Amino acid sequence: MGKQRLGFLSDFVEAITRRTRGGEAATLQALARPASERARVACTVLMGRIGDAARVAVAEQALRAYAELDGDERLTFFRSMRDDHGVDAQAIREAYAAWDKAPDAAAVADLFRVVEPARQTLLRRLNLAPGATLQLVRMRQDLLAAMRADPGLAPIDQDFAHLLASWFNRGFLTMRRIDWNAPAAILEKLMAYESVHPMQGWGDLKRRLADGDRRLYAFFHPATGDEPLIFVEVALTRGMPDAIGPILTAPEAAGTEPVDTAVFYSINNSLAGLKGVSFGNFLIKQVVAVLKAELPELTSFVTLSPVPGFAAWLAAQTDEPAMRLRAALEGSWSSDPGAIEALRPQVMAVAARYILQGRGKAGQPADPVARFHLGNGASAHRLNWPADLSASARKTAHGLMINYLYELDRIEDRHEAFVRDGTIAHGPQLASALKG
Amino acid sequence: MGKQRLGFLSDFVEAITRRTRGGEAATLQALARPASERARVACTVLMGRIGDAARVAVAEQALRAYAELDGDERLTFFRSMRDDHGVDAQAIREAYAAWDKAPDAAAVADLFRVVEPARQTLLRRLNLAPGATLQLVRMRQDLLAAMRADPGLAPIDQDFAHLLASWFNRGFLTMRRIDWNAPAAILEKLMAYESVHPMQGWGDLKRRLADGDRRLYAFFHPATGDEPLIFVEVALTRGMPDAIGPILTAPEAAGTEPVDTAVFYSINNSLAGLKGVSFGNFLIKQVVAVLKAELPELTSFVTLSPVPGFAAWLAAQTDEPAMRLRAALEGSWSSDPGAIEALRPQVMAVAARYILQGRGKAGQPADPVARFHLGNGASAHRLNWPADLSASARKTAHGLMINYLYELDRIEDRHEAFVRDGTIAHGPQLASALKG
Amino acid sequence: MGKQRLGFLSDFVEAITRRTRGGEAATLQALARPASERARVACTVLMGRIGDAARVAVAEQALRAYAELDGDERLTFFRSMRDDHGVDAQAIREAYAAWDKAPDAAAVADLFRVVEPARQTLLRRLNLAPGATLQLVRMRQDLLAAMRADPGLAPIDQDFAHLLASWFNRGFLTMRRIDWNAPAAILEKLMAYESVHPMQGWGDLKRRLADGDRRLYAFFHPATGDEPLIFVEVALTRGMPDAIGPILTAPEAAGTEPVDTAVFYSINNSLAGLKGVSFGNFLIKQVVAVLKAELPELTSFVTLSPVPGFAAWLAAQTDEPAMRLRAALEGSWSSDPGAIEALRPQVMAVAARYILQGRGKAGQPADPVARFHLGNGASAHRLNWPADLSASARKTAHGLMINYLYELDRIEDRHEAFVRDGTIAHGPQLASALKG
Amino acid sequence: MGKQRLGFLSDFVEAITRRTRGGEAATLQALARPASERARVACTVLMGRIGDAARVAVAEQALRAYAELDGDERLTFFRSMRDDHGVDAQAIREAYAAWDKAPDAAAVADLFRVVEPARQTLLRRLNLAPGATLQLVRMRQDLLAAMRADPGLAPIDQDFAHLLASWFNRGFLTMRRIDWNAPAAILEKLMAYESVHPMQGWGDLKRRLADGDRRLYAFFHPATGDEPLIFVEVALTRGMPDAIGPILTAPEAAGTEPVDTAVFYSINNSLAGLKGVSFGNFLIKQVVAVLKAELPELTSFVTLSPVPGFAAWLAAQTDEPAMRLRAALEGSWSSDPGAIEALRPQVMAVAARYILQGRGKAGQPADPVARFHLGNGASAHRLNWPADLSASARKTAHGLMINYLYELDRIEDRHEAFVRDGTIAHGPQLASALKG
Repeated sequence: MGKQRLGFLSDFVEAITRRTRGGEAATLQALARPASERARVACTVLMGRIGDAARVAVAEQALRAYAELDGDERLTFFRSMRDDHGVDAQAIREAYAAWDKAPDAAAVADLFRVVEPARQTLLRRLNLAPGATLQLVRMRQDLLAAMRADPGLAPIDQDFAHLLASWFNRGFLTMRRIDWNAPAAILEKLMAYESVHPMQGWGDLKRRLADGDRRLYAFFHPATGDEPLIFVEVALTRGMPDAIGPILTAPEAAGTEPVDTAVFYSINNSLAGLKGVSFGNFLIKQVVAVLKAELPELTSFVTLSPVPGFAAWLAAQTDEPAMRLRAALEGSWSSDPGAIEALRPQVMAVAARYILQGRGKAGQPADPVARFHLGNGASAHRLNWPADLSASARKTAHGLMINYLYELDRIEDRHEAFVRDGTIAHGPQLASALKG
Repeated sequence: MGKQRLGFLSDFVEAITRRTRGGEAATLQALARPASERARVACTVLMGRIGDAARVAVAEQALRAYAELDGDERLTFFRSMRDDHGVDAQAIREAYAAWDKAPDAAAVADLFRVVEPARQTLLRRLNLAPGATLQLVRMRQDLLAAMRADPGLAPIDQDFAHLLASWFNRGFLTMRRIDWNAPAAILEKLMAYESVHPMQGWGDLKRRLADGDRRLYAFFHPATGDEPLIFVEVALTRGMPDAIGPILTAPEAAGTEPVDTAVFYSINNSLAGLKGVSFGNFLIKQVVAVLKAELPELTSFVTLSPVPGFAAWLAAQTDEPAMRLRAALEGSWSSDPGAIEALRPQVMAVAARYILQGRGKAGQPADPVARFHLGNGASAHRLNWPADLSASARKTAHGLMINYLYELDRIEDRHEAFVRDGTIAHGPQLASALKG
Repeated sequence: MGKQRLGFLSDFVEAITRRTRGGEAATLQALARPASERARVACTVLMGRIGDAARVAVAEQALRAYAELDGDERLTFFRSMRDDHGVDAQAIREAYAAWDKAPDAAAVADLFRVVEPARQTLLRRLNLAPGATLQLVRMRQDLLAAMRADPGLAPIDQDFAHLLASWFNRGFLTMRRIDWNAPAAILEKLMAYESVHPMQGWGDLKRRLADGDRRLYAFFHPATGDEPLIFVEVALTRGMPDAIGPILTAPEAAGTEPVDTAVFYSINNSLAGLKGVSFGNFLIKQVVAVLKAELPELTSFVTLSPVPGFAAWLAAQTDEPAMRLRAALEGSWSSDPGAIEALRPQVMAVAARYILQGRGKAGQPADPVARFHLGNGASAHRLNWPADLSASARKTAHGLMINYLYELDRIEDRHEAFVRDGTIAHGPQLASALKG
Repeated sequence: MGKQRLGFLSDFVEAITRRTRGGEAATLQALARPASERARVACTVLMGRIGDAARVAVAEQALRAYAELDGDERLTFFRSMRDDHGVDAQAIREAYAAWDKAPDAAAVADLFRVVEPARQTLLRRLNLAPGATLQLVRMRQDLLAAMRADPGLAPIDQDFAHLLASWFNRGFLTMRRIDWNAPAAILEKLMAYESVHPMQGWGDLKRRLADGDRRLYAFFHPATGDEPLIFVEVALTRGMPDAIGPILTAPEAAGTEPVDTAVFYSINNSLAGLKGVSFGNFLIKQVVAVLKAELPELTSFVTLSPVPGFAAWLAAQTDEPAMRLRAALEGSWSSDPGAIEALRPQVMAVAARYILQGRGKAGQPADPVARFHLGNGASAHRLNWPADLSASARKTAHGLMINYLYELDRIEDRHEAFVRDGTIAHGPQLASALKG
């Protein structure tokens, strides 16, 4: 660090101190340095020998400066985070040598201490600032974007992932039902975050919250306040639905009609910065428990899920039936009931193949939504076609949807069989479609 | 793992699954195995290949079984936690070799992953159970006790300390003022946790919460609910107090008398299991900010603090004045105003030596309360004697107390000087007492 | 009103206005007039031609001045309230004459307007001040006391009773369960207001709130905030209890033992100033509904009630059996199981007579607690003796208690029969005791 | 009451009782009687000799039946309410005679009791049902409509007005600030109730709640829950605004620009059924107090108010200047800056005449908004033209608006002068416009 920067560093500490002294706005901005420099220096100060309480103010400055950075500056910021706050190689060598000589738990602990990158401490200290947790989640979102430009930033992402998984442990989350009495500020976020079946405005949202036959549940974390981390939309119906249209557009039921089925028709993760922190399975399981307690008449818990990888997979198939089907699906079948009836058997057969035999990376099911629900212990219960004629669903899945079935007393067995052997639980319709 | 245990293990998984299936009480207890075995096996299952949602139930079983253990069984449990959930030595060797060859950030990340003891994952998974966080804090309290019997458990404590420091990050805490409108369930805890100046019952507590001239603030964590983690009791006075008696016993002020001083007269950490997680400095700083905003007439923020190491230190001194003073303090001075006046100069001189020159481990001030406040950037402002004639204060400090002074605009400088050079900021009274 | 007072009156208005102007403390106190004069003048101003918003400040002054009055001054205050804020006799005569001529609804409305004493408007305007409602309730409590000295104040009480019954309409009340998480400030009030079975301190209170087998419910009114208007204490038991001792002193049940009975063992009206406003029947009915929903295993809802009028009634009887029983009860039977067994049949016979045939004013049952529960539609189900050996219960009831039984599907019939014919529903035990 | 109806009546009581007994839905609907009959009979039962607790159920039935009535049936219902639940003429005669003989307070009280129409008791009993208060407010709204068809219903309205004024006493109201964190269910109501400057949707609403430079406050009553009774919208500005457009459409200020003026630009009473219960003056005064405390930099509190009676008044004037102005205003001046400049002096002169000299019923100012603010003690400070070019403002006021000024230290004097002498406080602009 050159002399000039040291001068700035001491100015910085002085500025923070003055701020504390006078309660004045003598912030770093007043020092007229570029945000990129301020962000980096604040991180350095934060890792230095200052009082815990002063760290709160420095963390605030760091996050404020970071917020001003543009894309290129962020890239530089992340690189310096990677390079300036890593490990002490000599300390690692020594701790490893000591462990190698006497490999007991104490030696592991010493080794662990020096192998943990200083970045993790840096992130924990940045988190001292009020509201920091959400800002760090957004910072990781930026990082994920930056990694596309520079894959060498991946090690920082491991630090983020490690800390966020610990902080957003399910034990710290609270589930809340959201209805029309929720704050508009939260409802507005739901509209913004809903990407499976986008809402067309407040009227649409209100329908999805209607007490008579709809529910919406979300997980929240105390440190991110009113930010819904994940939410699931549920329709209460009589029988298992085979198309999304009626669910999105039906007028509210009077609440007096009997229902027997809870349909999870949309699940959304809100914060891209929490990628890899799993909430969905916990949320579904808790919602099932809550609904069973509230409405004992419910006997069936299913999803009505998209099949986002179907069209792409189909396009890649080279066998005769698949190619023929693809050609047929390019036609204008959607307004032709006869064509639909004629095509359905082929769609079912090929789609069953996709779900039950299509394989992606590491031998997992090709379809990402299938991976999620099957991994949760659900069964691929029924294919529905055509079930969603929206432009996006036609493009990605030729209008196909699936009901995954959650049977509480079989979830654990199915999960285990799926993880151990790759067994895909499925309903009779898929079984016969595959054979047919 | 012998055959018998494997049998039990599969029974266990079966039991959990059945529980999920039938919603029945087919818990582990029903398996009629000793709690020690259940606790250990549950941990093993938790680290195995089961679904996330099932983990919640297993974590619950593990914690429930743990709660039934007696002291000896806990010792065994902790040892197996240390030995069964450690690291893979071979993986460490390989990751080290890879890093040694190409020591970049990615290699560090790989090494970090294998060096982190599996115990940390285990603790994070135990935390999935409802209410687990508080139980884990209490488990660590047990561990600290167990370490006295077996210091070899220290590596586990490092895992606990590491995780708890991350989970109880200041960014996750909320400060609340506690007054007479707080839930009795919280107030009861305050009475139990207050150890500096114990309360004699609800009347005593009510006095310490009286709106006219008292305040009490505490930190809470969302995952530990109504458990106050640390709390500080404040008296609003005119002038700096020189004895604790009036603060504890004075009737409530009408709220119309002018005040200029906020006195922090008792600070208590509640949960022994959070040892080493620092809250105090953050709490004091935030309380000062809140009080300044609410009562702009306050000009002075001081403590009235015990000196818990004074008597022991004095007993260890071998110089003439100290030995003479000790002999004199063994007499019956406390009810003899003349004797008090005569003794005071000597007490002041020796006590100033203790505070300013007494050194403990690592060259730090000998007195633990002094270490805390000086480390926070306070000044040792004034000695008061006799200031506390309770049996415990006489035994540990011959009745001596100190006012530490928090001057916001000097906190950072003082903290830095203390950390860098060991400089102990102090008031004129101590300076002249030391010379005299 | 003499000239001097008029001068003061205008000073008063000026003072209020100035207060509004400067936000200063130029209150009426500053006018150095006695509280009695200030209270009366403020009432006069309040009825005069000032702005609505100014009335808030004047009402505050009136209530503050009133709070300073001693007993004699209150008597004077109430008399002036009666005499200065009554009706306009001439207006009544005219309105009556008009009605007499054309007795339609409009004429009644006109007559009503002039017959309503101005006091009711005064009370409504006093109620504009923050916190006024509770102060008015307390004022009525003072009035009830003052009426003992001057029965001529009764007309004011009718105004109070009329307004309070309207304001404390059941539609405005909310029921809340009180447990150990309630604010200490509320719990403290419960201890102060419990007079049926007084509590001996916080430990006693905590026991009565224990989640395992106790409940406490209270009505609150939004305008009186945390003031419990009436509360009922409930024990959950197996079988109908025949003595109060075990209920008050039994250690908390684990919550796992089966219960089938909810026992209302103490009902307390808190505010004497709400005399005549009936809450009890609404509260009992709602608590029964809430408990049934929460604990479907409850099959029986009973009270364990005192018989406060028994001893006095017995002392007034002149027939042989009664006089013999009284004499026997004056002995020391309470520690002599043999004597108790011997006496019981006589106690039962005479007590059954008291409950079923004892008559007080207007032919109502002599016992006030019996009047309440029978009027609510309960049945006098079972006599218990000895059931309460506390000094007060021995003095007022020779240790006798009763279970009144609330059977939901018979409440309305019993109420009607009681109101119409004076029929007292009762259990077989009382029937045979009466015959025996 | 004929025999048939008596039969129905007893069926009714039976039905209610059965409902209580079995918890079944054996409601009145099951009796298959028309709603009009059920509503009337339920009122009769409610006034009869049934238990208090049973009254809750009967009141519910009455209100449910009422809700089903159409306009004609309501008329009939109100007439029967007037005729069946009035007074006992004989009792009035006797009480009057007694009072006439000995006209003391006790005799007045007796007379009052018999003159109060039974309807008031009926309304209080209807209010026992959950949620009844709001339903009664809506019932009165229906009544006000019915009175246009049958003015003879006015006496019932007096009962409603009398009770509602007592129940909605300012002492029972709570003021809340509404912002974007308020429940959507409340915000939706604001949009529906805003009639001064209607909102165009959620975006518009969000702008009016923006923390930077807008505020919205409302009064709520505990018994009507989330129903805003009255609300005021406030803009924080620099200087006094002279047109509504910028306030409604300006983008949110950063919150860093200095403001000195709070502008009350829209005040709405929500519930037509609360006509005559005055809230506005209390609300304005409390909002001023709250804003002064929060933002001490505010020095000026003004309205920007419509002048809804101006156009109609102008149309009725027959003097030369007024007629000339009217003719000119019918032209297309609004998009012609030159015409506006030329017309402005005439508009100001005639408008000043309207505000300062226009008189309506009982000698009050002709303009209803002027009556409200002048009656509250505000001053007619400044005329603005053109200030509102919306279609409705052009139609009712030719685009004119006024700033009324609330000066806290002059409110009381101005109120008094207005009430006593009809003095209209006004600013210099109006004074000179009137002369000009």
